[in-house]
Amino acid sequence: MQRAIDLGRQARFWAAPNPAVGCVLARDGEVIGSGYTQPVGQAHAEVMALQSAVNAQQSTAYVTLEPCSHQGHTGPCAQALIEAGVTRVVVAIEDPNPSVSGQGIALLRAAGIAVEVGVLADQAEQHLAGFLHRMRRGWGQVTLKVAASLDGRVAMATGESQWITCEASRQDVQRLRAESDLIVTGIGTVLADDCQLTLRPDQSSLSSEESERALRSPPHRMVLDSQGRTPVDARVLKGAPTTVITAPGIEMAVSITQHQLPVDQGGRIVLDEWVHYLGTRSFNSILIEAGPQLSGALIEGGWVDRLVVYQAPCLLGDTGRPMAGFAIDTLAESPKFQLEEVTRFGTDLRIMATPMAAPELPSA
Amino acid sequence: MQRAIDLGRQARFWAAPNPAVGCVLARDGEVIGSGYTQPVGQAHAEVMALQSAVNAQQSTAYVTLEPCSHQGHTGPCAQALIEAGVTRVVVAIEDPNPSVSGQGIALLRAAGIAVEVGVLADQAEQHLAGFLHRMRRGWGQVTLKVAASLDGRVAMATGESQWITCEASRQDVQRLRAESDLIVTGIGTVLADDCQLTLRPDQSSLSSEESERALRSPPHRMVLDSQGRTPVDARVLKGAPTTVITAPGIEMAVSITQHQLPVDQGGRIVLDEWVHYLGTRSFNSILIEAGPQLSGALIEGGWVDRLVVYQAPCLLGDTGRPMAGFAIDTLAESPKFQLEEVTRFGTDLRIMATPMAAPELPSA
Repeated sequence: MQRAIDLGRQARFWAAPNPAVGCVLARDGEVIGSGYTQPVGQAHAEVMALQSAVNAQQSTAYVTLEPCSHQGHTGPCAQALIEAGVTRVVVAIEDPNPSVSGQGIALLRAAGIAVEVGVLADQAEQHLAGFLHRMRRGWGQVTLKVAASLDGRVAMATGESQWITCEASRQDVQRLRAESDLIVTGIGTVLADDCQLTLRPDQSSLSSEESERALRSPPHRMVLDSQGRTPVDARVLKGAPTTVITAPGIEMAVSITQHQLPVDQGGRIVLDEWVHYLGTRSFNSILIEAGPQLSGALIEGGWVDRLVVYQAPCLLGDTGRPMAGFAIDTLAESPKFQLEEVTRFGTDLRIMATPMAAPELPSA
Repeated sequence: MQRAIDLGRQARFWAAPNPAVGCVLARDGEVIGSGYTQPVGQAHAEVMALQSAVNAQQSTAYVTLEPCSHQGHTGPCAQALIEAGVTRVVVAIEDPNPSVSGQGIALLRAAGIAVEVGVLADQAEQHLAGFLHRMRRGWGQVTLKVAASLDGRVAMATGESQWITCEASRQDVQRLRAESDLIVTGIGTVLADDCQLTLRPDQSSLSSEESERALRSPPHRMVLDSQGRTPVDARVLKGAPTTVITAPGIEMAVSITQHQLPVDQGGRIVLDEWVHYLGTRSFNSILIEAGPQLSGALIEGGWVDRLVVYQAPCLLGDTGRPMAGFAIDTLAESPKFQLEEVTRFGTDLRIMATPMAAPELPSA
């Protein structure tokens, strides 16, 4: 199963909106085939594994997610395993997708195949988090990425922020982007930095094979721009598809994908509505690279599933721009996280943390 | 030598103003005696080691710092080693103390003893940093301790700061205090928190033996209080000796140790003068536990030799109080540190860092 999980990780650059599944076929303790999810419309992990095996009769299939039971772009994988003569299937996690959710397992069992569920489930949970989040609650995993100083500043008062963190950290951000299906920013960041938010494999630590997979399926981009202020020549409108979210009635001067969502009294996109809209777009992994205002609103609203802070050991002082713009009165109200992983990247630290209490479903 | 360094570490709770030296005597590959610096006025490490050995004839002494050559509270250690018949002395670091600095080694060599210098010097440097700093430049090692959130806030806007960090972090702060000879704060922190800044061994992770040594020589306290606003009943004036630093001409209403130093145009103690004054007080290890104003001034002035940040994985938002109050205009001016050690303490991180460029001697 470990090998299946590792294989699944290879698929994370291009699988979306499908889950990045890995599959290993073994017989008499020997691996006879393996595969991982191909880009949408192409073969799933199980089919890849079956194709790579000369003969799958009497073998055991290790799959990170329950084999599908429905006809999508491709045929149902459960059926393919049955037809190939697999006699045992070991599954890490049952698929929460309503059109599968136990039916794949039922189909296998009905064909007399022994099915085990829950092997290395925790590890697979983590690796399939984006897809699982989306199936269970409607929208994918939201990761907030921040590059900050040790005193929690993301830019100087002037807006200068290139570069607080070191090259190794910035290379890792490229990997984070490659693993994401959507990169989101706010109009403030677009106007201040004219950010591009594209993949730049030559500036990343990805292997050439990984880069190739990532570029096959580059992340979509999205700008929260209630008043439609994105300049016609903004770099974020070039190089990859972009959706601009505006308030109702705002006409953009440039022909791009635009979606209108309600705004609050302060003129800001209502985040409940935005998150619901994300659910309609099938993004598993959503990366936020935004300024203090949008970051703060997402944190305050409890919308962040994962915090990734690249922290440089420097101090910018109290006139620097804050990491997150939100106001609370007491320590008790402070959003609390737990450290998942702390790693050194060059001269910096990368701190990965998840909320102590998971974000709740909005009451819409 | 490793054993001598470890022994020296035992002395760090009480050795000041002497260096916390360790000494091991060995003959034919066997340890025959060992010791470490006792509280001021009592035996140095070498004498302790000689006393613990039945007979030190023909042995090798491993000492973390050059044996002293002068008569202080105790007799010269170099002479004691000669008289005991030691035939070889291995030293980690030459003593920069002007009244020793090579003379101890010269004395040993003149007596026909083989002397080696520089063994595990880097490690001993780190461990004897406070004393070495003081001997080389006049004042001890300045450690700035900060307890902050992930977004670099040390308190809420209301001043609420108990507790941002977890219990394990706070226990480690007690250890940090125990290892310090002086704890410094500003009047702002005294007025806001009525802090005590004493050792509370029951709230620390020290062993009972270490606690005992620490309590034998509790850290002195100092308040930078230019206008003499420290309340008569402030807790920082009870429980251990305290010096209050005021501007010239300020009379304190309470009978305490007071020292007057020049102030700048903003009415703040001139830090150059204060650091020179520290030099006259023989503190090896100086711990700063202060608010944003004093912390910021020390960072901005380049007076911090070591930064210890206890970082809790929570966010306090942009209305929280900053870690360091100082203002710079460009990233290039930002004080840069290098990570020395990153450790998890309970749910928190402890980040220890040292300046990229060492503080320069003031041009006074």
